[in-house]
Amino acid sequence: MLYQPEQTSKSLVTKSTGPGCSSIAYGATEEIGPFRINRGSNLYLNSFSWNIEANLLFLESPVGVGFSYTNTSSDFKEFGDERTAQENLIFLIKWMSRFPQYQYRDFYIAGESYAGHYVPQLAKKINEYNKAFNKPTINIKGFMVGNPDMDKNNDKLGTITYWWSHAMISDTNYNLILRNCNFTADSFSKECNSSIYNAAADFGEIDQYSIYTPKCVRMKQMRKAVLARQTTEYDPCTESYADIYYNRPDVQRAMHANQTAIPYKWTACSDPVFNNWNWRLSDNSMLPIYKELMEAGLRIWVYSGDTDSVIPVTATRFSISKLNLPVKTRWYPWYSGNQVGGRTEVYEGLTFVTVRGAGHEVPLFKPQSALILLKYFLAGKELPRSY
Amino acid sequence: MLYQPEQTSKSLVTKSTGPGCSSIAYGATEEIGPFRINRGSNLYLNSFSWNIEANLLFLESPVGVGFSYTNTSSDFKEFGDERTAQENLIFLIKWMSRFPQYQYRDFYIAGESYAGHYVPQLAKKINEYNKAFNKPTINIKGFMVGNPDMDKNNDKLGTITYWWSHAMISDTNYNLILRNCNFTADSFSKECNSSIYNAAADFGEIDQYSIYTPKCVRMKQMRKAVLARQTTEYDPCTESYADIYYNRPDVQRAMHANQTAIPYKWTACSDPVFNNWNWRLSDNSMLPIYKELMEAGLRIWVYSGDTDSVIPVTATRFSISKLNLPVKTRWYPWYSGNQVGGRTEVYEGLTFVTVRGAGHEVPLFKPQSALILLKYFLAGKELPRSY
Repeated sequence: MLYQPEQTSKSLVTKSTGPGCSSIAYGATEEIGPFRINRGSNLYLNSFSWNIEANLLFLESPVGVGFSYTNTSSDFKEFGDERTAQENLIFLIKWMSRFPQYQYRDFYIAGESYAGHYVPQLAKKINEYNKAFNKPTINIKGFMVGNPDMDKNNDKLGTITYWWSHAMISDTNYNLILRNCNFTADSFSKECNSSIYNAAADFGEIDQYSIYTPKCVRMKQMRKAVLARQTTEYDPCTESYADIYYNRPDVQRAMHANQTAIPYKWTACSDPVFNNWNWRLSDNSMLPIYKELMEAGLRIWVYSGDTDSVIPVTATRFSISKLNLPVKTRWYPWYSGNQVGGRTEVYEGLTFVTVRGAGHEVPLFKPQSALILLKYFLAGKELPRSY
Repeated sequence: MLYQPEQTSKSLVTKSTGPGCSSIAYGATEEIGPFRINRGSNLYLNSFSWNIEANLLFLESPVGVGFSYTNTSSDFKEFGDERTAQENLIFLIKWMSRFPQYQYRDFYIAGESYAGHYVPQLAKKINEYNKAFNKPTINIKGFMVGNPDMDKNNDKLGTITYWWSHAMISDTNYNLILRNCNFTADSFSKECNSSIYNAAADFGEIDQYSIYTPKCVRMKQMRKAVLARQTTEYDPCTESYADIYYNRPDVQRAMHANQTAIPYKWTACSDPVFNNWNWRLSDNSMLPIYKELMEAGLRIWVYSGDTDSVIPVTATRFSISKLNLPVKTRWYPWYSGNQVGGRTEVYEGLTFVTVRGAGHEVPLFKPQSALILLKYFLAGKELPRSY
């Protein structure tokens, strides 16, 4: 199972998602990996690690992200979806020949956020590549994406809808956006973008990726971290611990990382990658690829943490609705332990799942629910209807 | 300061709000009183009790609710808004003459849920009564309501909007409701009500009054209660503790309650009151009373815990929007400690406040934010813009 990076640019005010972030920093360290990092820069075990259910491979992509490096400066010139998918395919082919024990096994790809582009795009590349073989080494069976970039127009309309319905913005700003924005246009006008930007001031200083949990505040960091250790409560400062940990020389040595001693610091998200991204080479909508891969028989699950305001559940609902798929199993609540884990609806070719009370990084906020999700996805079974 | 009961009928499947619940059971014991009850039927101090800021009077109303009793069976015949308001006024007049030290002081009324009817209705009664006096003994200055029943049509439309946008119901059921319901009609059709009822099955077994916190599950009660004591985490089983506590003979003796030994058990909500409620005598909309009392110069604050799905923030936004008030201070995030407490917008005559991540019983879920809210309400000041 390949885990693609969380791809969000944490530097933008309105937190548009975008590429450049590390799957080690987010996926492995905060979400689904076996170890998490605490405030003291030490590791502790994640009881809900996804390697309970599958072999995990984390891919830092494209080059320039996390520990993926290059010493050819022209590599930094133009990043984009197509190049990323192509390079990821080449990586996988080489990796399979380097570790032949993983060839021919059932293979799945997962990812969240901007990996809503990478994951289906790579799946498509693999699917095309596999056509030349009777028995493909990269035996892709399906993919799963969480709070994914799916369809630019629906994502944007769904985000604005979420902001208003979750009491994040005023009626005035909501109506201004609806007046200034054409959500069926190929691109958004300057007026539209600026009214969206202005509305974001209505939120206040919250974690837009998880709108009800506290934000990391440095002065309170210590007290919170202590509390978090004691109660397994969510620690909002968790993101900063990776930054310390992965820059430790002993950690880099142990990971066989940075052996060429690159002259810049390891960062969770790469500004050069984000700033050199060629958006014109990125598709506005992934929906055509979804259709193609559904026809190819791939298992496709889309999940959504319903307290994320960056790629919110309303956005994903609008996008899936646009696919206009026949309903196979009607909407029902699914259970994680003795509580409602979220809701799910199964369509012909695609399963939609919400995770109740989870932010953008679902396995960070709801680790138990996320592991159940993985288990049922891999088994190709519908989520449990009761406890 | 008079605190009116939370008035919700917890027995209905779709959790329509309605009268019959006790302000001692909810307001005093779970929310704003100085003591809370733990699993062991003992009291512990609430550090955010509203009596830090004001003298509190909890009123069990109408007769038949909580410890309010009658030995005239005809009293149980027909309950309604008008009778409740009238009886509450008479109670207050008598109470003021019994405790003259509270006469002429600034007087405020607060309440939540169905008290969205009681509170403005009583304020109106007092206001009318006071016209006969130069210096009124019940010196009413204003009122505050939380997640209130305000306007039946907007409340219902806002609730359905909330259900869909919070991923609680399917597209299919949402569209069915929109097709079957006329939200401007005087009453809702059978088809409308039944499509709303059916949609509620999509939620699963959650606490509809607080959609992201766990539901009380008996088998897990003990573990959770222990955890709650250790971490001051919210205990979803808190509601059941009052039921044990207030039926204890020693507690009733200490409270000078039930001295006539009524032959039925104390309950948090009264089925006889709810079942004998005359809905035809209840107004669909409180908005005309709001207008009247704004003109009378009363201070009016409306707050909303934004994770309640029973009288959700979208409902309250629609209702307030219908008042069409000029904006005095534009929407801004307010702070509780170093976190966003919610957002607020100040209109001519009315202040609207959201409490971020709070369910229906705001002071239960966000006690610190609720106390700040009370403090600023009583001071007539706008909520803090920073920390």
